[in-house]
Amino acid sequence: MSRIVVLTGGVGGAKLVLGLMRVCRPKDITAIVNTGDDFRHMGLAVSPDIDTLLYTLAGKANAAQGWGREGESWSFMDVLKSLGGENWFLLGDGDLALHVLRSHLLANGETLSATTARFAAAWGLGLTMLPMSDDPVATHLTTDEGDLPFQRYFVQRRCAPAVQAIRFEGAARAVPAPGVIEAISDPETRAILIAPSNPWLSVDPVLAVPGIREALAAAKAPVVAVSPIVGGQAVKGPTAKLMGELGLAVTNQSIAAHYAGVIDGLLIDGRDDAADLLIPHDVTDTLMKTLEDRERVARAALALADRIAG
Amino acid sequence: MSRIVVLTGGVGGAKLVLGLMRVCRPKDITAIVNTGDDFRHMGLAVSPDIDTLLYTLAGKANAAQGWGREGESWSFMDVLKSLGGENWFLLGDGDLALHVLRSHLLANGETLSATTARFAAAWGLGLTMLPMSDDPVATHLTTDEGDLPFQRYFVQRRCAPAVQAIRFEGAARAVPAPGVIEAISDPETRAILIAPSNPWLSVDPVLAVPGIREALAAAKAPVVAVSPIVGGQAVKGPTAKLMGELGLAVTNQSIAAHYAGVIDGLLIDGRDDAADLLIPHDVTDTLMKTLEDRERVARAALALADRIAG
Repeated sequence: MSRIVVLTGGVGGAKLVLGLMRVCRPKDITAIVNTGDDFRHMGLAVSPDIDTLLYTLAGKANAAQGWGREGESWSFMDVLKSLGGENWFLLGDGDLALHVLRSHLLANGETLSATTARFAAAWGLGLTMLPMSDDPVATHLTTDEGDLPFQRYFVQRRCAPAVQAIRFEGAARAVPAPGVIEAISDPETRAILIAPSNPWLSVDPVLAVPGIREALAAAKAPVVAVSPIVGGQAVKGPTAKLMGELGLAVTNQSIAAHYAGVIDGLLIDGRDDAADLLIPHDVTDTLMKTLEDRERVARAALALADRIAG
Repeated sequence: MSRIVVLTGGVGGAKLVLGLMRVCRPKDITAIVNTGDDFRHMGLAVSPDIDTLLYTLAGKANAAQGWGREGESWSFMDVLKSLGGENWFLLGDGDLALHVLRSHLLANGETLSATTARFAAAWGLGLTMLPMSDDPVATHLTTDEGDLPFQRYFVQRRCAPAVQAIRFEGAARAVPAPGVIEAISDPETRAILIAPSNPWLSVDPVLAVPGIREALAAAKAPVVAVSPIVGGQAVKGPTAKLMGELGLAVTNQSIAAHYAGVIDGLLIDGRDDAADLLIPHDVTDTLMKTLEDRERVARAALALADRIAG
């Protein structure tokens, strides 16, 4: 009973996985990563959440910036601009290696699973990294500016448009990547964690892949989410703004309601009100600024899962 | 009668075109560029001779290195190596912008002609740059190590294998790019120059595109080649070694014989013997180290053409 499964999106999720890597054996960890943000940019296959996790676990992430590589160079973008190419999405010189090699391997018939495993192994990360699916799923937002693919909303428009609805194109036809259902359903799985990534934009695409929500509901292992709410706000990104636009209070009660039927417990921050929270929960400082913070949150989430499992 | 047409390959050819740009009006110059070296590397469309010409004319070429961009950075290759990607062909960070954007535009249905014109215009080069063809042509070498595509021979094996034969895959089905035949056949064309690029590897692919050799033979304008031989040696690259392997003496007589039926005159270097050279010729210092050298060779080639035209 040593296996830990974690569903994760971008930066916040990668922090929790890094914490898990320090309090568990990496080989016991299976990360199931959102690919709803994936898109083709100038023909290149970009997988932002997979890359954020790779960079974070390899110690290569630019923590201050919140995306991309530490010590990145920008010659590519400079020359691209001089040629009149699109420059709303920034591709760092080193970052391009992942996109170019991934595109090449996918074009040669390799799956996204295999490419992701190849990259994680090349950097010696030791955990199992699985995309949620090898099939394309694309998060789209219906906004007051019309339909926007995720990156147009998130990067180009900096989450400014008001969101009315979210859909995951291709999800209905997508199949969980090899190993995803097995990891969730494995009787040896000790805990299944949902990282404090945006529930609507980063976790819902994973849950939208047919079979994953059902497997979580049926899992023997306890499912514990780490709430993205800290002190009535989202730590980062558009979560709080989005919740308001969707008519939801920015509370853990909203998070618990959103994950109803999926989670068995919720880890919340000490700054927030636990009253009216009927689901099993624990309280800690969930803000993850330092490595010690990441370890603390990972330990607290596992402890809650262990308590639920009895 | 102001138009100048020049057939060119890589570095040596780009030097002559740069000289022409300084002694003629750029808008009068049409460069027809070898694309037999073009290949797909990790899915990216690489056009080495077009890029060398773009970099040289834009003042961005790395003259010391003989290829690529001045002041290039190498983050892409560093990360690619860490991922276990192929690293026999070096792609600089800024250089990648041309390959990624070109691949993207080609995938969207743009022709290589249009992409090349777009890049030349973006950098304000002022001349007309035409690939020899919009259709793929791939130079292959039969060697003592078996069949080698051009870049494997040239870059990976550094021209070490002994060459027995050269062929241009796809050439028989290729069509000259729009403007190529028109430029050669234009009654307003004053001179057609063949740059001192490798006749077998860089110029022959151009001549192998059906219609180009015939148009040169029929052209009203004089066709003058600048010999790649200087002092019984090739200035650069595998020309002399290759000529030996093909059973040819490294002489201007061999160059003249190779271009028989195509050229009306040959510009040779003062260090070489002009005896037995039956074709109209002029002698100058053809070594192009400085900008003044490039201008001198351009002027001398045009003067020979004018003398032949009478």
